[in-house]
Amino acid sequence: MSYPKKVTICDVGTRDGFQIEHKFIPTATKIEVINAIIAAGVRKLEVTSFVSPRAVPQMADAAEVYAGIDKSRGAELVCLIPNRRGAEDAAKAGVKTALLFLSASETHNLTNVNRSVQASLDGLKDVMAVANGAGMAVHGAIATSFGCPFEGDVPAERVADLAVRMRDMGMHHVSLGDTTGMATPPIVKRVVEAIRRRAPALELTLHFHNTRGLGLVNVMAGLEMGVTHFEGSIGGLGGCPFAPGATGNICTEDCVNLMHELGIETGIDLDALCAVARRVEQFLGRPLPGQVMRAGPRSKLHTIAAAKRAVG
Amino acid sequence: MSYPKKVTICDVGTRDGFQIEHKFIPTATKIEVINAIIAAGVRKLEVTSFVSPRAVPQMADAAEVYAGIDKSRGAELVCLIPNRRGAEDAAKAGVKTALLFLSASETHNLTNVNRSVQASLDGLKDVMAVANGAGMAVHGAIATSFGCPFEGDVPAERVADLAVRMRDMGMHHVSLGDTTGMATPPIVKRVVEAIRRRAPALELTLHFHNTRGLGLVNVMAGLEMGVTHFEGSIGGLGGCPFAPGATGNICTEDCVNLMHELGIETGIDLDALCAVARRVEQFLGRPLPGQVMRAGPRSKLHTIAAAKRAVG
Repeated sequence: MSYPKKVTICDVGTRDGFQIEHKFIPTATKIEVINAIIAAGVRKLEVTSFVSPRAVPQMADAAEVYAGIDKSRGAELVCLIPNRRGAEDAAKAGVKTALLFLSASETHNLTNVNRSVQASLDGLKDVMAVANGAGMAVHGAIATSFGCPFEGDVPAERVADLAVRMRDMGMHHVSLGDTTGMATPPIVKRVVEAIRRRAPALELTLHFHNTRGLGLVNVMAGLEMGVTHFEGSIGGLGGCPFAPGATGNICTEDCVNLMHELGIETGIDLDALCAVARRVEQFLGRPLPGQVMRAGPRSKLHTIAAAKRAVG
Repeated sequence: MSYPKKVTICDVGTRDGFQIEHKFIPTATKIEVINAIIAAGVRKLEVTSFVSPRAVPQMADAAEVYAGIDKSRGAELVCLIPNRRGAEDAAKAGVKTALLFLSASETHNLTNVNRSVQASLDGLKDVMAVANGAGMAVHGAIATSFGCPFEGDVPAERVADLAVRMRDMGMHHVSLGDTTGMATPPIVKRVVEAIRRRAPALELTLHFHNTRGLGLVNVMAGLEMGVTHFEGSIGGLGGCPFAPGATGNICTEDCVNLMHELGIETGIDLDALCAVARRVEQFLGRPLPGQVMRAGPRSKLHTIAAAKRAVG
C-alpha cells in the first residue's frame, strides 16, 4: 500500500460549521479564527458563503469577513455561492475562488434548494458566467455523493455524470460531499473509480462527515486510491440535521494527525491548529467532537505524577 | 484487498467501561446490560474483574454479576484476574475464561500494578496454575502494546517477546491493548507482523482506543492483516486518565456497523445493540461517544417532513 507523499487539507469549519450556529458569531471573531487557521499552515479554506442573509443570517457578514482575511500567505480562500446574486456580491468583495454546488439526489436537491437537479445544473451555468466574468476560479461540490438520507443509495454513475457535467462547464476541481455521513470504504472506491473512468484529469476533494464514526476510515479509503484533497472542520464543528447530538464534518486536526502518523506531509502545525480548535470551543461554550485537541498527539508524553493524580 | 468473511467482536464495556464509573452501578443493572448485549448476538464479552473491592469498588460484585449472566446462548464470558486471590475467587464463582494481563512498558506496568514486567510475568505463572487447576481457559492481554503514555514508542519486538512468553505459558489467545490510544496503522502492522513471525498460531485480538480518533482506522489496518478478533465497548464507554473528556475504547456498535458495511459477518443485531447503548446512556445520565446509536445505520432513511423540521 502506498499513500500520497503530500495532501491538501481544506478547513470548511468557518463556513460549513459556523453556518449552523444559531447565535451570531461576531465578524471579528470569524476573522480571528480564519487567520489563526491560516497561520497554522492551512492553505485552503472554505471561509464563508455569499448566500441571502435572510436564509442564513450567520453569513450576513460574508463581504466583511472576506475583507479581513490575511491574504499575505497565499491561502486559497473558497467562498460558497448559491446563485447569481451571490456571485455578484462575491465579485464586488474581490473573491478569487467560488464554490458552486448541487446534490446528486433529486430529493435532497429539492429539499435543499427547492428545485430539480437539472434546474440546478442550468442555474450553475448562469452563476459561472458571472463568476468567470469577474475572473474567479470556479470549483464544484456534489452533495449526497455517497448516499441520500431520503433515497438511500446514490448510483456511482449518477455522481460521475454530474462530475463530468461540471468539468464540461469548466470546473477543474470537484468536491464530493458525504452530507449525512453515509460513505463507507467500498462506496468511496466505487464513486471515485466511476469518476476517474470518465474524467481522469478532474481534481477530486473528499468531504466526509463522521456521523457514523467512519470519517477517517473513509479518508484512508481515499488515500489508498491516491486522492490528495480532503476537507475537515476545525474542532469537528458542524452537525447532522437528522440526529441531534450526532457529529458532522470530520475534524481537521484529527485528519491532520492521521496524515502525519502515516508520514504524509500537510504543511500544517498540528499544535497550533489544536490551539485554534480549543479557542473555538471556548467561545462557543460547548465541547466539540475533536479528539486530538483534547488528548494531544501521541508524541505528547505524561509524567507518573500525572497518572497518580488521574487514578487518585 | 480482501477482508475476513467473519469476525468476533468482544464487548468489554461492562468491565473496562464500568470500572471507571465512580457511582456504583447496581448489580441487577450490570446483569441486565450484559444479558441484553448477549441477546443482541454478541458471543464474547469481558464481563467483570475479580479484583480487590478496595482497589476497584465498582467490581466488588463480580461473583454475583457472573452468577446472574445468561449462559444459555454459549457466549464466552471473560473475567479479568489480576492475582492469585482473584483466581481463587473466580474459581469459586465458576468462571470458565480468565484474562491475565501485564503492560509492555516498564513504566506503565509499574504505575498500574506497582511491579516490574518481569515480576508480573513471574506472577502470571502463579495465577495460571490456580486458573488451570480450576479448569479455566486462560487468555492474555498486553497493555500499551502500541505505545506508552510515559515512555512513548514501545518496540514491536518487545511486544512480540511478551506474546511468545504468554504462549509458552499455555495461553493460546492474546489481546493487544492500545491503552491510551497511541496506535496508528503503521504501528499496528509492525506489531502484528512481529508477533506472527514468532508465534504464527497465536490468536490475536486487537483492543483499540479512540483517544485520537483513529480507533476504527486501526481496526481497518487489522482487517487488512486478516485479524478476526476485535474489542469494543458498548456506547464507547470508558475514558482516558490523561485527557479529561477524551474518548476511551472504540464503540462496539460503531465497529459492528463498519464490519457490516464491509460485508463482514458479526452475528450481531446492530439495532438491538444500539438499543442497549441508549439504555446505558440513559442510566449513566450523560452522552456517550457512540455515533451509530445516535444516527442509526446508513440504511435508516428520513422523510422530507423531518428535514423541514430540522431546518425550521
